[in-house]
Amino acid sequence: MPKSDTTVRRSNFPIVQKQPTSRRTFLRNGAAVAGTVLTAGALGNSRARAQSLPVPDSAKTPGRIIQPKAYGMPSKYESHVVRTRSDVFVNKQNLSDWSMTPLQHQRGIVTPNGLIFERHHAGTPDIDPDTHRLVIHGMVKQPLQFTMDDLMRYPSVSKFYFLECSGNTLTDWTKAASTTVQQSHGLLSAAQWTGIPVSWLLDEAGLDAKAKWVLFEGADGSAHTRSIPIEKVLDDVLLVYAQNGEMLRAEQGYPLRAFIPGWEGNVSVKWLRRIKAADQPWNFRSETARYADPIPEGKWRQFTFVMEAKSVITTPSGGMKLNGPGLYEIQGFAWSGRGKVSAVDVTVDGGKTWQPAVLEEPVLDKMLTRFRYRWNWDGTPSKIASRVVDSTGYVQPSVEELGKVRALSGFVQHHNGIFPWSITSSGEVKNAVA
Amino acid sequence: MPKSDTTVRRSNFPIVQKQPTSRRTFLRNGAAVAGTVLTAGALGNSRARAQSLPVPDSAKTPGRIIQPKAYGMPSKYESHVVRTRSDVFVNKQNLSDWSMTPLQHQRGIVTPNGLIFERHHAGTPDIDPDTHRLVIHGMVKQPLQFTMDDLMRYPSVSKFYFLECSGNTLTDWTKAASTTVQQSHGLLSAAQWTGIPVSWLLDEAGLDAKAKWVLFEGADGSAHTRSIPIEKVLDDVLLVYAQNGEMLRAEQGYPLRAFIPGWEGNVSVKWLRRIKAADQPWNFRSETARYADPIPEGKWRQFTFVMEAKSVITTPSGGMKLNGPGLYEIQGFAWSGRGKVSAVDVTVDGGKTWQPAVLEEPVLDKMLTRFRYRWNWDGTPSKIASRVVDSTGYVQPSVEELGKVRALSGFVQHHNGIFPWSITSSGEVKNAVA
Repeated sequence: MPKSDTTVRRSNFPIVQKQPTSRRTFLRNGAAVAGTVLTAGALGNSRARAQSLPVPDSAKTPGRIIQPKAYGMPSKYESHVVRTRSDVFVNKQNLSDWSMTPLQHQRGIVTPNGLIFERHHAGTPDIDPDTHRLVIHGMVKQPLQFTMDDLMRYPSVSKFYFLECSGNTLTDWTKAASTTVQQSHGLLSAAQWTGIPVSWLLDEAGLDAKAKWVLFEGADGSAHTRSIPIEKVLDDVLLVYAQNGEMLRAEQGYPLRAFIPGWEGNVSVKWLRRIKAADQPWNFRSETARYADPIPEGKWRQFTFVMEAKSVITTPSGGMKLNGPGLYEIQGFAWSGRGKVSAVDVTVDGGKTWQPAVLEEPVLDKMLTRFRYRWNWDGTPSKIASRVVDSTGYVQPSVEELGKVRALSGFVQHHNGIFPWSITSSGEVKNAVA
Repeated sequence: MPKSDTTVRRSNFPIVQKQPTSRRTFLRNGAAVAGTVLTAGALGNSRARAQSLPVPDSAKTPGRIIQPKAYGMPSKYESHVVRTRSDVFVNKQNLSDWSMTPLQHQRGIVTPNGLIFERHHAGTPDIDPDTHRLVIHGMVKQPLQFTMDDLMRYPSVSKFYFLECSGNTLTDWTKAASTTVQQSHGLLSAAQWTGIPVSWLLDEAGLDAKAKWVLFEGADGSAHTRSIPIEKVLDDVLLVYAQNGEMLRAEQGYPLRAFIPGWEGNVSVKWLRRIKAADQPWNFRSETARYADPIPEGKWRQFTFVMEAKSVITTPSGGMKLNGPGLYEIQGFAWSGRGKVSAVDVTVDGGKTWQPAVLEEPVLDKMLTRFRYRWNWDGTPSKIASRVVDSTGYVQPSVEELGKVRALSGFVQHHNGIFPWSITSSGEVKNAVA
């Protein structure tokens, strides 16, 4: 569908009510329909002959046969749906790099494994699961070493969680740098993750009651390492080996990663080889020079783990075009690192008024939630945005509000502010950050 | 993980309780741990030196860099995880064919798009979405024609549903034909499907109140066609264009298919090009010679749409091997075409006694539910099986019970009976149908 992904067509569809009677009443009242009426002009034959429709070529010949053993791929007509390196923040080297999820194409709440965003600090390593080892040591009674077979014989849990990079949207704090939502918000994905609670293994090792922090270290070329408070580790941190039903992809940490629900992506250390318990954090470079946030008066805040509640409209979004006045369904994602999404409001007048959107079930803890809002666009220039409230009562802030507590200079992480799109009178959708 | 997928390793892990205190008490009582104790023998150095672990090769060099535009693929170490043609029921031609999902490898409840089973009657057609058309006609006030752009401008819904072929497990009614659960139950998958309720479009066309059946016809070489009762069509039938977050795969009906939740897979007509309303069913060959079930006294039952409640153990399952006595987590899937899974019981003694399994959240309507049951295998020959109860109170029957109402001769569809695996004293897991 190369054409439809950047163009939202004019929609004359009637607003469908829940009761069939109401819907038919609506139609009887003369609302236009979305489909083409089958007349002589439409098919080159009369309405009565609609039963003898032209047979498409695809029905005249056999199709592609099934391969004995295969892993399926997307349709060739969808080859434009890919994850892409940023074309806003041009990365001048490529060992520490990222690619972004095409959120404007995503349907539902699960990101296909082939489109989950990538982020690493020294490339994706090639790790043979048969030789990979995980070690647990430090402030434990008995250091332990595990093979992948050891780990996969444990009981497991499967949980749907979003994953977002702390740097998501950092190009667009105060200027409209990104053209599309893939560029502005594409360091965001969601999957069902399968693995083992870390607490089970720490219990086996005999965690020292004085241990307050745990480090996770990757087996990649950067030996990426982070310190995590013990309370979180014992609460819900997983050792994950599968995503969306199959083993992890190499770029997602194959064969093993940490998964720290609701926290910035980089703490969910990939290619995990080491867990160590201690009574204080390590203050790695990844915790001082990187992944810390500047705040006013030249100070920095450290260990800013939680991804606060955030939302963004994905349809319509930057680069799309509305095909004239009419009814449109505004859609987007909302999520919170602190719990569930409680409500999403949508504005179509630049924030003057807000209306409640519908949340699509299932609404899950620390997971993307899809919201929908039906809008009758009158063809005048408009500014649309969404605002989420999470289950703790936290309301997604404006950039102005965030600016009071952050120093918005340089590449500042943790941008969870309200994000606007503008729509011109000709229907063009553009980044409206200013 | 080529080795681990066919072998369940011996598990000495302690049964983990919910309270950390209990877990530690369990450990203090001397239970063996699953990980290797880090001693001189384990790593070639002392326990104290565990902090200076050998650095893996992957951490010594940069890894693979990110491509500018890419659709990701599974790890090369997972190349054995594929959907496969049946090697039990050898298909002597290949235009009407099927491939099966590797359920023994699936984690969680979502089947990756590359592994969703295939079934078609004349190969997979190649359909350009820009030229594809959907027509609605028959007993409607106004026949309508839609382009894909027309359809995709509608509001949409996304729903998690299982999809099962009516022929799933038909090779194994009374003899142990299949070696693995992929072969016995692999015409089963699950995804989040995105599309439009068909009722919206029928309302636009002005459905005649006397219409009782609707046909769906595919644009494939077989022009596969089915008649569906109007009550179901207006209840929850969708026109689906996306699966698990991205556009349909070609073999799943790209660019458009019907999706009829909870009913046998073949009625969810793929490559959908025509919907027609009428006051009676069409009695296609697919409804008389095929997709009907033989019953006693030489009769057949027709329009046996609903996939009744069913469950199967996937771990351990045929072809795996338990590595000695110890604790194992039995896992499997349960589902029902009539609603949600209410309970699953597991037997480890060939049906003499049944114990409740744990259902993993989210438990969704007409969707796979994963169940888990922890079992301490004593090393004696055992026979394991699962039995589901759905939200209507229906209990998964034994094959003996099904045999009273079906004629179990030839390739009989709709096998939802209890399915047993045997475990030998050496730990080999085998199909125990007899």
